[in-house]
Amino acid sequence: MKVGMIGLGKMGLNLVKNMIDNGIDVVGFDLDPDSVKEAALYGAQTAGSTQELVEKLASPKIVWVMVPAGRPTNSTIDDLITKLDPDDILIDGGNSNYKDNLEQNKRTTKAGIKFFDAGTSGGMEGALTGGNFMIGGDDAQAWKTIEPLFKAISVPDGYLYTGKLGSGHYLKMVHNGIEYGEMEAIAEGFEVLEASQYDYDYKAVAKLWNHGSVIRGWLMELAEDAFSDDPHLDQIAGRMHSSGEGKWTTEEAMDLRVPAPVIALSLMMRYRSMQDDTFTGKVVAALRHEFGGHAVEKIAD
Amino acid sequence: MKVGMIGLGKMGLNLVKNMIDNGIDVVGFDLDPDSVKEAALYGAQTAGSTQELVEKLASPKIVWVMVPAGRPTNSTIDDLITKLDPDDILIDGGNSNYKDNLEQNKRTTKAGIKFFDAGTSGGMEGALTGGNFMIGGDDAQAWKTIEPLFKAISVPDGYLYTGKLGSGHYLKMVHNGIEYGEMEAIAEGFEVLEASQYDYDYKAVAKLWNHGSVIRGWLMELAEDAFSDDPHLDQIAGRMHSSGEGKWTTEEAMDLRVPAPVIALSLMMRYRSMQDDTFTGKVVAALRHEFGGHAVEKIAD
Repeated sequence: MKVGMIGLGKMGLNLVKNMIDNGIDVVGFDLDPDSVKEAALYGAQTAGSTQELVEKLASPKIVWVMVPAGRPTNSTIDDLITKLDPDDILIDGGNSNYKDNLEQNKRTTKAGIKFFDAGTSGGMEGALTGGNFMIGGDDAQAWKTIEPLFKAISVPDGYLYTGKLGSGHYLKMVHNGIEYGEMEAIAEGFEVLEASQYDYDYKAVAKLWNHGSVIRGWLMELAEDAFSDDPHLDQIAGRMHSSGEGKWTTEEAMDLRVPAPVIALSLMMRYRSMQDDTFTGKVVAALRHEFGGHAVEKIAD
Repeated sequence: MKVGMIGLGKMGLNLVKNMIDNGIDVVGFDLDPDSVKEAALYGAQTAGSTQELVEKLASPKIVWVMVPAGRPTNSTIDDLITKLDPDDILIDGGNSNYKDNLEQNKRTTKAGIKFFDAGTSGGMEGALTGGNFMIGGDDAQAWKTIEPLFKAISVPDGYLYTGKLGSGHYLKMVHNGIEYGEMEAIAEGFEVLEASQYDYDYKAVAKLWNHGSVIRGWLMELAEDAFSDDPHLDQIAGRMHSSGEGKWTTEEAMDLRVPAPVIALSLMMRYRSMQDDTFTGKVVAALRHEFGGHAVEKIAD
């Protein structure tokens, strides 16, 4: 089996190595020549353009797109729709919004291209040594063609064909929404411990909680690693960036009119963490001052 | 080593079996004769009263209290303070509020009794085959005496001496607060999936997420079990009972004036789940009607 990989960033390059380790031939392409060089050193064929990449594959061609979600992915897919032939297989492995995939699916279907949306979890380590994949796509027959690929690069039982196109990224979106909530809950717990009258060793606590407790899990293992490096995380600012999927899960819950308040609030707390001060805070302080004469804290000149 | 176990309910009886399996002698007492009988059949000595239980132990006596949190635990501890001697060891293994333990510690200290508060996680299965324990207590020397007991009944690395009295149940309280948030986040994710346009096999999804994904963990394994028994949980009402520790974590966050909004909201969502209709809903519907003439849904006579 031979796969064309477009995008050799942290995730794409690790997937390439994972594929090669598992006997899959890879043709790699990236705009960054250093990444291309690293893929070549690991044993990948390389291409100087998407056109060349496509030419180096035999029919039915299998192309995996692993570039940043949004415009980069969408334009790459648009480009590939013009270069692939009917029955070729196109996999969007990035963190795409499933709605983008549904739009693209109209065009891939028209072109006879078998399109799959694969959500990837497990982080960089998973991409390298065995990942977790949720794969949607309308053509269950074509899925059979690429199933060995996913089997090769997953941990055991680490992939699932979820049915209709979009269902892979949709499931990954919800996975990340759950992740937002779990991470915020874990973090709030440690916030209470940090403010408490007791003096806990957080590394020891996280380690303990990973051995037989109800809340054992990989996120708690990562917490153990983090506290091991920096017992009170003194070197890390509490800014919680986000890359879209928590927001999409919240939007989806609103579109469906089902409550997902903890996931939504976890997202809002991320936004809050990006602010040094808030306009909300100013307004509330001003109103307390207005009606009750309560003191406000003045900003120094 | 010989331990007196007061309380042979689901958790206490499993702990007794776990202790006996690991070579620890046990004297058991419970108000329910059937539980006492079951402990005896498993090899425990039994006692007809706490007085008899204490008499069947050699000094320094070790007594583990495993009765429901609150009044039952508190009255049992009050009783034992009158029956134990200086240097005897008293362990509260229930789900007590650490504030109760701090109060009791004044009296145990006065009596020279070495008091420990042990939070227990891992569920009934953990109690039986290897649990997870967080143990606080002011006397680090006496801890050395009971450490072999905890080592025997824990999973490997499954116990931690957390220092001052109260710190064990405090840590267990926060553990449960985290558990509330994680469970709500997981559940909201499945709520979105259930409402979505896609048709997921939740058992397969939970299983997938347990193999290499970021959100793998024991709670997701339990979700897999639950969906395995009942694919859409048709047989389970969505009532989320709670037994105190989420509330205590939230109260503690408020007392400390640190934000733990997701844990607090997870608690509130449990309360919401216990209501069929809400007064909040009636008030909002009435107000929308008042200012905008929006229709209200009338309660049928």
